[in-house]
Amino acid sequence: MRTGFAFHLDAVNPGGPRAGVLTTPHGSVPTPLFMPVATLASVKGVDIGRVAETGAGMVLANAYHLHLRPGEALVEQAGGVAAFMGWRGPTLTDSGGFQVFSLAQQVRVSESAASFRSHIDGSPVELSPEASMRLQERIGADVAMQLDHVVALPAPREAVADAMRRSLRWAERCLAAHRRPDQALFGIVQGGLEADLREESATRLRGLGFDGYAVGGLSVGEGPEAMVETLRATVPHLPADRPRYLMGVGQPRDIIAAVAAGIDMFDCVLPTRCGRNSLVYTFDGQVRLRNLRHATDPRPLEEGCPCLACRHSRSYLRHLFLAGEMLGPILASIHNLTFYQRLVARLRDGVISGAFDAVCRDLLARLALAPEADG
Amino acid sequence: MRTGFAFHLDAVNPGGPRAGVLTTPHGSVPTPLFMPVATLASVKGVDIGRVAETGAGMVLANAYHLHLRPGEALVEQAGGVAAFMGWRGPTLTDSGGFQVFSLAQQVRVSESAASFRSHIDGSPVELSPEASMRLQERIGADVAMQLDHVVALPAPREAVADAMRRSLRWAERCLAAHRRPDQALFGIVQGGLEADLREESATRLRGLGFDGYAVGGLSVGEGPEAMVETLRATVPHLPADRPRYLMGVGQPRDIIAAVAAGIDMFDCVLPTRCGRNSLVYTFDGQVRLRNLRHATDPRPLEEGCPCLACRHSRSYLRHLFLAGEMLGPILASIHNLTFYQRLVARLRDGVISGAFDAVCRDLLARLALAPEADG
Repeated sequence: MRTGFAFHLDAVNPGGPRAGVLTTPHGSVPTPLFMPVATLASVKGVDIGRVAETGAGMVLANAYHLHLRPGEALVEQAGGVAAFMGWRGPTLTDSGGFQVFSLAQQVRVSESAASFRSHIDGSPVELSPEASMRLQERIGADVAMQLDHVVALPAPREAVADAMRRSLRWAERCLAAHRRPDQALFGIVQGGLEADLREESATRLRGLGFDGYAVGGLSVGEGPEAMVETLRATVPHLPADRPRYLMGVGQPRDIIAAVAAGIDMFDCVLPTRCGRNSLVYTFDGQVRLRNLRHATDPRPLEEGCPCLACRHSRSYLRHLFLAGEMLGPILASIHNLTFYQRLVARLRDGVISGAFDAVCRDLLARLALAPEADG
Repeated sequence: MRTGFAFHLDAVNPGGPRAGVLTTPHGSVPTPLFMPVATLASVKGVDIGRVAETGAGMVLANAYHLHLRPGEALVEQAGGVAAFMGWRGPTLTDSGGFQVFSLAQQVRVSESAASFRSHIDGSPVELSPEASMRLQERIGADVAMQLDHVVALPAPREAVADAMRRSLRWAERCLAAHRRPDQALFGIVQGGLEADLREESATRLRGLGFDGYAVGGLSVGEGPEAMVETLRATVPHLPADRPRYLMGVGQPRDIIAAVAAGIDMFDCVLPTRCGRNSLVYTFDGQVRLRNLRHATDPRPLEEGCPCLACRHSRSYLRHLFLAGEMLGPILASIHNLTFYQRLVARLRDGVISGAFDAVCRDLLARLALAPEADG
């Protein structure tokens, strides 16, 4: 890996789950790790000091969004995205590949670049692998991601294979274009739900030699079983000595399954998005704070949770949501972010102690209690 | 004053400005003091730990709002409004007189009570002086306010006099109905902009004997000169050994003028309301964060301000507002609340040092710079 970066494994359990430490120029973070999402250089509703208090060690921002607002020049002038938002630890930027294909309008992909119109004001934007590298270097996170070509699933096998191979060619161009010696670069495995395409993608990316490897194009509605199958077809073809990052995942059960399959890093908007909508995670399942059952409940959301929200009663938190007070979304987001950090910490402890399987069984049984889960 | 309460004056300057300490069962706070407004048991957008970090010593909640949502039974069950919202210091509840006359629908006032329809769901509510005392005792703040009859200004002198005298009769009934020995009760001077009515109200309230005295019915568009004139006609008739509270005021210049006139306590929604709308206060005037001039400004809002927002650049804060991030309103509210605490602290220091007039002149000159003030 690049100077200033290291990935050290503390323990690996049978079948794949790992506990490690990722070192970057801005500090070391234990893995498995969960990155709160600061799309626009802000974790929605949570000041950066409170983000640190949740136990988060590394934060993700989005190069596509920051390019549109406020522009990379401003972020660069501030000393990079971490300094811009006042975060003292490591950061990672997504290249924006996923956002281009999910948010932008009139997307056209040629071999040279993705062309599209901004989802903010419709202005034309072109993103090539080289431009993405330059963009992410200016935004200045510790870890940059290659530009990839993402297709929505389900899709014909030919379209999936075509996008995967274009992503490989773009990976090569990203490697060639990337300059910053103090920034790591991760490749992204694509290939939809096709095991052989995933293997091809992982094997060829590995041959190119990245600082870390992401699995992209999942958590797009394929269901947990398909996700795990795809990981099982992918992870064995990735080098053991580099961090593995499952992008955009996910529900607690997905994170547990992915750690079991050997994944080290995660990011997801669910903790803050659900929190804003009064849905909170606990180790005994999800809680809908607007539910009448909490109206007079003096208990915290979760006994033993050290977060700010859990210094209050469920009845107070419910009142905040019913009264439309901003503090409801703020506190629920803080709780959910804390929950995700406690979840990955327990998985790590499970790996370290060698009791990972038992820890997972216990976690999954309790999470499935989900007395108020949706669906 | 009641057991557990005290008001001690540290210094009084010529002409009236005072520096004191108000002691309550939940702690002592220096005066002049500014209370952040937690209408519904939440300071909008700011978690209670961050509220404490702004330097606030005492918080105001609103009995009318809490009666409608979530109801006083829930607040009482939680151990009172301070425990309900997790605030460890003193609290005060407004009786809701002002809200009844500004928010409620179909208000009818008889000698016995104000009857109206809830602004939430239109349901009928009746608020008598006795009911207000029972309500505020259950909500359990350290300081309760009498129920008063507020008329919108301008109003005919007869209407103002009638409401002022009804407020006096209600003051007497509140005193008779109030039971909690651990809760102070403040009377409220009314009388519009009529100096003789204000004198009559203050003199007769003083004769009834309250723990503190509020000046109500101001900051309703009368302008700063009329406000100060009214205070000059009122304050000399209030006892020197009791705290004086100017309700709902106001702009920084109003607070400076009111402290000069001998007022000790303030509350106002402006710091949080303006903060949510990207208008921030500094000692060099107001700043509109959306203004293009801040787009690339690496400086904090205010040099030397210890608040969370001032750890960031103006360009970052502007970006948050332009991108619609919740963190913009959160940080701007925190800055404004901190500004108000620093303002009253400087006024207090001015009184203590005997240099109050010079401190005021300096503050007013700098505040008037207001490069971006509205209007």
